[in-house]
Amino acid sequence: MSGCVFCGIVAGTVPAWKVAENDRAVAFLTLGPVAEGHSLVVPRRHVTVLEELTSDDLPALWTLVQEVSRRLRAAGFATGTNVIVASGRAAEQEVPHLHVHVVPRKEGDGLDLNGWWGLRVRALPAERQSEVAARILGRTA
Amino acid sequence: MSGCVFCGIVAGTVPAWKVAENDRAVAFLTLGPVAEGHSLVVPRRHVTVLEELTSDDLPALWTLVQEVSRRLRAAGFATGTNVIVASGRAAEQEVPHLHVHVVPRKEGDGLDLNGWWGLRVRALPAERQSEVAARILGRTA
Repeated sequence: MSGCVFCGIVAGTVPAWKVAENDRAVAFLTLGPVAEGHSLVVPRRHVTVLEELTSDDLPALWTLVQEVSRRLRAAGFATGTNVIVASGRAAEQEVPHLHVHVVPRKEGDGLDLNGWWGLRVRALPAERQSEVAARILGRTA
Repeated sequence: MSGCVFCGIVAGTVPAWKVAENDRAVAFLTLGPVAEGHSLVVPRRHVTVLEELTSDDLPALWTLVQEVSRRLRAAGFATGTNVIVASGRAAEQEVPHLHVHVVPRKEGDGLDLNGWWGLRVRALPAERQSEVAARILGRTA
């Protein structure tokens, strides 16, 4: 898409440090890393949110995420990884080309994913959970 | 796997509010939601980390994640979603059966994903990024 920085990286017109690719997806280092090796994986075809990924692009994208995770371990940048997607503006998506963060993690690295939501977790009453599930299943209005 | 709560949910011996499933993956409401509809998607086959997913289970798992995201929007719980995986203890994985969080998001919901890492983002010098990429690509020791 014209003007999209990630489309530019896919096309090779915007420079980036690529770390892996396949026929439908590309992985490169983010310019705003929280740890060395923090990468983004994007579909070559421009889509904005997760729901728009085609059934061809979906497995290729996630296979590349798995490969990047493997490579980060193999290269010594990680003993674990956080995989994070912000899909949609309400989910704090900033660049409107779907991208998957692969964040390398090591014990004692000072990052704290659970800190993000630890304080916000709230048990919902069973009755309410039951209603929520039914609505997602489309069983009630 | 014996003693694994998510294997119990897959087998039906541990109760859960299922919200979607396919032949290789199951989605259900988490007991520790940060928002109504917060779901977990797990492969039926027990694996611990992302790297262990087989090429059969991988597309099925992520297709179900996409479906849950769609359903959360359709049911009115979300206008966007955060997809989050903690793969490995170093990445703060707590239950050792791979699981994908699908967090429903709405504008003004008070959650703040960027708050988690916003302050930790640091630009790395171009030279260092270049070295990091080469190492992930396996081009240097």
